[in-house]
Amino acid sequence: MNFIDMLRARWRTADSLLCVGLDPDPARFPAAFRDDGEALFAFCRDIADATAEYACAFKPQIAYFAAHDGGESALQRLLAHLKAAHPDVPVILDAKRGDIGSTAEQYAVEAFDRFGADAVTLNPYMGRDSAEPFLRRADRGCVFLCHTSNPGARDFQELDVGGEPLYQRIARTIAGEWNAAGNCALVVGATFPEELKVIRGLVGDMPLLIPGVGAQGGDALAVVRNGATADGTGLVVNSSRGILYASSGEDYAEAAARAARELRDLLRRARD
Amino acid sequence: MNFIDMLRARWRTADSLLCVGLDPDPARFPAAFRDDGEALFAFCRDIADATAEYACAFKPQIAYFAAHDGGESALQRLLAHLKAAHPDVPVILDAKRGDIGSTAEQYAVEAFDRFGADAVTLNPYMGRDSAEPFLRRADRGCVFLCHTSNPGARDFQELDVGGEPLYQRIARTIAGEWNAAGNCALVVGATFPEELKVIRGLVGDMPLLIPGVGAQGGDALAVVRNGATADGTGLVVNSSRGILYASSGEDYAEAAARAARELRDLLRRARD
Repeated sequence: MNFIDMLRARWRTADSLLCVGLDPDPARFPAAFRDDGEALFAFCRDIADATAEYACAFKPQIAYFAAHDGGESALQRLLAHLKAAHPDVPVILDAKRGDIGSTAEQYAVEAFDRFGADAVTLNPYMGRDSAEPFLRRADRGCVFLCHTSNPGARDFQELDVGGEPLYQRIARTIAGEWNAAGNCALVVGATFPEELKVIRGLVGDMPLLIPGVGAQGGDALAVVRNGATADGTGLVVNSSRGILYASSGEDYAEAAARAARELRDLLRRARD
Repeated sequence: MNFIDMLRARWRTADSLLCVGLDPDPARFPAAFRDDGEALFAFCRDIADATAEYACAFKPQIAYFAAHDGGESALQRLLAHLKAAHPDVPVILDAKRGDIGSTAEQYAVEAFDRFGADAVTLNPYMGRDSAEPFLRRADRGCVFLCHTSNPGARDFQELDVGGEPLYQRIARTIAGEWNAAGNCALVVGATFPEELKVIRGLVGDMPLLIPGVGAQGGDALAVVRNGATADGTGLVVNSSRGILYASSGEDYAEAAARAARELRDLLRRARD
């Protein structure tokens, strides 16, 4: 099953718009993991197992693995575990890759073959041919940055290009030209709910990955009101720190499950 | 010594504008490496050792390592070798990273601490705060994408934003606002020599990393005429495939050295 169908199926069966972000920062791990050589893997596994029933997707952030020796092995083990234990939950590798075609081919191998992700986040700045090696993998998802959640999103993404801001031009280009295989999605920050509304109007029912709820200050209710499709889906609302570090005590997994369930429920209520 | 000073010193002492790109593709390795479990490292080491005297910089492309299990170990060994054997040649890790601040911190650790690169390539699309964790490392170089070498560079980078193309706005923003520590450089593709001329006019003597000579069709003479600073430096002209795969026979290292010397000499003549 391809990524988009897998996501649609999961929205239905789990009745959840919540994506659990896996950004493991050893400095914030519970004490039990402090001297654990496999902590990157083991902590993320515990969080994923505790939260899977509330999640429409998992999103490991590769930077938090790549900062450590052996991080890639931990990420591989984590993906293998997620696929074995939670095969219905699609995994989006957050990597924001983007390079010329021959190099992009290598990055597609990294994300889809080496790590086995169902989808990967990509930076569109280098244009169509930099996206092709990913777009060609019709069974996998290509999640392009559109309007990001950080303050610097205003620096270039909002510049006016012929009567519309750059992020809207990018949304239209991806929806109209790059999405021939139907495997595209966009990143739109929860911190910009008005922009989210405009983007939803431009891209039909294309899935939108929404970072920025929680630690970054985004409003979950506004996200659902402005971003959901008519059937109440279309959104992958990510929370990382608010779930991962809900407790720094021995109850970290239970606290993560509680935080995930609460955010799932909040997103459900916002839709109703 | 910081990256920019290291580069300036190397331009003088080696009298070279050539950057040797290390993009190891096992499918193109000489037969001797086919069954070598350490081929990624060993091939790049041999190429680097054969070409160092002609190079102002080395540029390993992380995607070619990340596509393979154990690739990061090979890259670490390679950087350790480059630093030990060729300490005067700065190493630019080509990674095109870019993410929100807390994630960018992790990527800065990856590039500068884990791999020990002197500089890293970065994607500016997410704006100022996504660049800060790199900019703060004043001893290291931040090489931002401006106008890339691929055909898709025209898709978004050339869009008009208030009377100038986006890539020029980005060049001016980085030169005028992001370069407080003096550690910035820009990527400008050799395939767009007129755009290179304009960018040089906008950024003073900021170093420019120039991919796209050779396999991608860029004209080395036009690059030097349009991009060099008044003192005949300012450029880091990259060649990867034309050097790495100059011969697929046993003479791969000698052929690489010859290709590197010829391109160095061509760049010298273009300047004179």
